[in-house]
Amino acid sequence: MVYSLTANETLTKLDFPVTLTFCRKIEVFCMVRVQLAELLQFTEACLTQAGASAEVAKAMAHSLVQGDLLGFRTHGVRRLPYNVKQLQAGRMKGSGEPQILRRRAAIETWDAESLSGLYVAPLAVQRAMSMARTAGTGTVVVKRCEHVASLAAYLQQATDQGLLITMMAATPAQASVAPHGARSPVFSPNPYGMGVPTRGAPILLDMSFSMTAAGKVRQAYDRNERLPWPAIVSGSGEITDNPADYIDGNGAILPLGGADLGYKGYGLCLMSEIFTLGLSNYGRLQGAHDGEMNTLYVQVTDPEAFGTRDDFLAVTDDLLNRCRKAAAIDPSEPVRIPGERALALAEEQQRTGVLLDELTWPRLQHLAKKLGMEIPTV
Amino acid sequence: MVYSLTANETLTKLDFPVTLTFCRKIEVFCMVRVQLAELLQFTEACLTQAGASAEVAKAMAHSLVQGDLLGFRTHGVRRLPYNVKQLQAGRMKGSGEPQILRRRAAIETWDAESLSGLYVAPLAVQRAMSMARTAGTGTVVVKRCEHVASLAAYLQQATDQGLLITMMAATPAQASVAPHGARSPVFSPNPYGMGVPTRGAPILLDMSFSMTAAGKVRQAYDRNERLPWPAIVSGSGEITDNPADYIDGNGAILPLGGADLGYKGYGLCLMSEIFTLGLSNYGRLQGAHDGEMNTLYVQVTDPEAFGTRDDFLAVTDDLLNRCRKAAAIDPSEPVRIPGERALALAEEQQRTGVLLDELTWPRLQHLAKKLGMEIPTV
Repeated sequence: MVYSLTANETLTKLDFPVTLTFCRKIEVFCMVRVQLAELLQFTEACLTQAGASAEVAKAMAHSLVQGDLLGFRTHGVRRLPYNVKQLQAGRMKGSGEPQILRRRAAIETWDAESLSGLYVAPLAVQRAMSMARTAGTGTVVVKRCEHVASLAAYLQQATDQGLLITMMAATPAQASVAPHGARSPVFSPNPYGMGVPTRGAPILLDMSFSMTAAGKVRQAYDRNERLPWPAIVSGSGEITDNPADYIDGNGAILPLGGADLGYKGYGLCLMSEIFTLGLSNYGRLQGAHDGEMNTLYVQVTDPEAFGTRDDFLAVTDDLLNRCRKAAAIDPSEPVRIPGERALALAEEQQRTGVLLDELTWPRLQHLAKKLGMEIPTV
Repeated sequence: MVYSLTANETLTKLDFPVTLTFCRKIEVFCMVRVQLAELLQFTEACLTQAGASAEVAKAMAHSLVQGDLLGFRTHGVRRLPYNVKQLQAGRMKGSGEPQILRRRAAIETWDAESLSGLYVAPLAVQRAMSMARTAGTGTVVVKRCEHVASLAAYLQQATDQGLLITMMAATPAQASVAPHGARSPVFSPNPYGMGVPTRGAPILLDMSFSMTAAGKVRQAYDRNERLPWPAIVSGSGEITDNPADYIDGNGAILPLGGADLGYKGYGLCLMSEIFTLGLSNYGRLQGAHDGEMNTLYVQVTDPEAFGTRDDFLAVTDDLLNRCRKAAAIDPSEPVRIPGERALALAEEQQRTGVLLDELTWPRLQHLAKKLGMEIPTV
């Protein structure tokens, strides 16, 4: 929500009053809260109106909103207008099933034929889980699904059933991340997700193999901010924290490890694209002009196939306890378990409403107007 | 080889003469070259004499020397005296087979019962390859194998047959790497290896998920050098490049990503230990006092199960060509493919002899003397 104040005016709509005294004009950007059920309903309705079947729209809405719940705001309902546009333009299929191209005891290859990744990813996780239960591991590689948004949104489907999951995604038409030692990009901003069941809350990891994610560079650019650390190599080879060097210039995002250890992030980027684009036979030779079309790699592992459930959980919980008890560099910031903050945020937002920021809310308002839909109350 | 010179003496045994003029005494450390066949024979003979069967000694010698060939000198024959000592003390079994604890279509869990990882790893790779050929992927988790040395040594076994391989290892009795935000260690220095078949040379990756490997910190310490970048957090929480803060102090190695992005390396360390120690049910609860005993995770993936061999190779080669052609920050250092330098070094050393440095050669001389063996000629 954006409020405009002029001199001496008092804004009373916030939790605390704001009066403008020292300057002429200010804009106050505030997050708005929308009740979860309302946001889901709105998202689903927009997708249905744009041409998705009821089943597809429901799954897509769930995947997007789950991203917001866990705090991945660059990959939540901010991407709803994009999905509506793709459906309306016929570039994304609104109904149907992915085609199974290959099948073995522990693997399947699918062609999503431009169905949304938001719809196909939960199906792939389900299938990988089922294979893992019998073969020990189950792997599904899905090519040509529209953008999957945040991998974190899909992990609990497996961890809730006591299963380990890893996920990767790549976009053959995108080049954002440079190989180590280069100043021009080759890799798409490949995310890596992992979910681990424990006796308590699951471990949820969703990260990129680069110094930052492309969505965060775009966000810093839109907000006219610098990045929190040098994550960009400019077109002329300088290491910089200026998002414009990437968005406007010919620069690239650095691989994880930066100037010294970037060969590690580079190696992990190669790994990601080989297991996604390579295995699915859908690389830049095939998909260089396919916009945000993804290949998705899902692998589920059943700890009970390898040993006992109790011992797996005991070893994992012991490891997490050692992390929690490690001496903190800053005593006011104890070591956190990946996913801890995301799950607390999800719990809070489920109760009090989903937070939408100043880059998301106006886009939803605009979308509602265009589609003639009623916008959720805030 | 160490040569001692006093004032005005000339050393003529090198490729170029060295005369000491400006100081009283100097020690010149030189690498020595040993012919590959001789080094293999010597290594095998030492292991046999220490109690290994002919079959076990042959495999162990091959694994160690392969590390040296690829340039992983901290994990090559420098570790031979350790292996001899473990065999002699009866802490490492010199013959026998690993026990198969669990089996499904795509996975097996083994207990190596303190056989050497140098011997068991190639067996695990072989078994994983065989499962991958039928099920699409094959995973073998091996607990309680003695130290596997360098993962790079095992990758070509799979890539030579057109198969993708990933490997991880962990050591439950070791704590070297800190979680993000901590100044005390939790994780063992977990290596990650990947091998990818291509139409040319394979991609070979062998890296840690930390800012440096423990072996490199030890080497810098032994050489009285600083680390090339700040990779250590001291016991009092300072970020430092001093190996003594780790070896003598109460410090820890930082996870990959360092002060800003260490949560990524931390997440990858968790991943590694969950897939090794967790799946094998052999964590710090079980193996905290087991010295250098490892759990090994091997996963082989058959690209032909997912798609066609030609398309997989075309996509992968296209990706590598894009990396090679990326604009280099320093034009004199074009982008390299992981493994490129290691394979060139191996080829050269196969022809001209294996290089052994000043931390390795004296140990082999000492070992030969102790065992009454003839040392290879240099």
